[in-house]
Amino acid sequence: MRVLAIDSSAVSASCALLEDGKLIGEQYINVGLTHSQTLMPLVENLLLQAGYRPREVDGFAVSNGPGSFTGIRIGVAAVKGMAAALEKPCVGVSTLEAMAYLFEGMDGMVCAAMDARCQQVYNAMFEMKDGQVVRLSEDRALSLEELVGELKGMGKPVFLTGDGSFVCEKTFLENQISFHLAPPHLRYQRAYGVARAAEQVFSQGKGLDAAALLPFYLRLPQAQRELRRRQAANG
Amino acid sequence: MRVLAIDSSAVSASCALLEDGKLIGEQYINVGLTHSQTLMPLVENLLLQAGYRPREVDGFAVSNGPGSFTGIRIGVAAVKGMAAALEKPCVGVSTLEAMAYLFEGMDGMVCAAMDARCQQVYNAMFEMKDGQVVRLSEDRALSLEELVGELKGMGKPVFLTGDGSFVCEKTFLENQISFHLAPPHLRYQRAYGVARAAEQVFSQGKGLDAAALLPFYLRLPQAQRELRRRQAANG
Repeated sequence: MRVLAIDSSAVSASCALLEDGKLIGEQYINVGLTHSQTLMPLVENLLLQAGYRPREVDGFAVSNGPGSFTGIRIGVAAVKGMAAALEKPCVGVSTLEAMAYLFEGMDGMVCAAMDARCQQVYNAMFEMKDGQVVRLSEDRALSLEELVGELKGMGKPVFLTGDGSFVCEKTFLENQISFHLAPPHLRYQRAYGVARAAEQVFSQGKGLDAAALLPFYLRLPQAQRELRRRQAANG
Repeated sequence: MRVLAIDSSAVSASCALLEDGKLIGEQYINVGLTHSQTLMPLVENLLLQAGYRPREVDGFAVSNGPGSFTGIRIGVAAVKGMAAALEKPCVGVSTLEAMAYLFEGMDGMVCAAMDARCQQVYNAMFEMKDGQVVRLSEDRALSLEELVGELKGMGKPVFLTGDGSFVCEKTFLENQISFHLAPPHLRYQRAYGVARAAEQVFSQGKGLDAAALLPFYLRLPQAQRELRRRQAANG
């Protein structure tokens, strides 16, 4: 099965083409340009260089959250567009799970963390076990205090990864949490991890129709939160 | 400093652009096409997507061996061409060292191995220490038996990486060498590792003029070996 995955959940944009687990090609860019300018040219170049036409892709995948609201929407819209046009299945995978897949094949725990502001992180915990990525928690938004509490109970060293690792680092050190900061080239989400996570979903026959693919937000967008706050105050 | 690195030392081709250690962009392709078709379009696309003109690159880098004779020559020629045209420095880095840089920031030893046929590997040993890549041996061609002998004395677990890992794996198991097979996405050379290794060389002021950059072969090409054999037999 040939899977084309994209990630535009943070400041970088990337796409990857996998065929039965083998990386055929990958493009990654981390510059100031917006995803609406960078994402589709990356995909077009990747397919061109790999020598495949879009209809030769069997399934599409995207990191559909958590992450930047606009970035997630651009990524989801791009994958919905391609999947609908070509009548191919698609899947949305957790951005945190995609990060964990960059540690596939190693030993240990992975604490994936994205900065959610106000001393909170979007987080999920994983264990790398016998070459598999095993999820230990749901994706959730929690305070650094709560996360530290969980990790203290765990008593195992972890790879700390994601753009939230900088927020966590100081608190982890203060609380004597044993951790290993992920090296820079494995610290941020990229489409390779999305594709690997998606391969597991496709292999279980859980591909979606384009219409069913949706963004996954742990929190409502700020505009909606403010609207609800005003409505509650007025109501 | 902005470094553009390429790798075409094996079946895949890749290029990466780093700015003071930060990955700006990377392109990787692993299809049946020859490097003469794939390599320069990758470089052009990378610069285009990143929004840089070639003259905005401060230094060029290439994995100049060991590796495929033709692949190495294409990579070296491409970097010589760009560096000469733009009057910028360039460096050649060991393909094995570039592989080790994919483990930068982790803990442990790295045994980088490329299949050299006839139960031999091109190998170098590295230690990942306090976030640094420390070289423990020169690049050399040696038998699996010799390599096993060294590793037994070492008594530490290692990451086994490179296309030679398949050749080593069975022999290591038979000899109770403690090792961890590198996960697929870190098992093969790619331009990111070339760029990271090259940054160290440039930071020591050891950039070369284009004319001084040469391929580095641990063995003579087959044609030259046969010529020498015939000359010796005739002489």
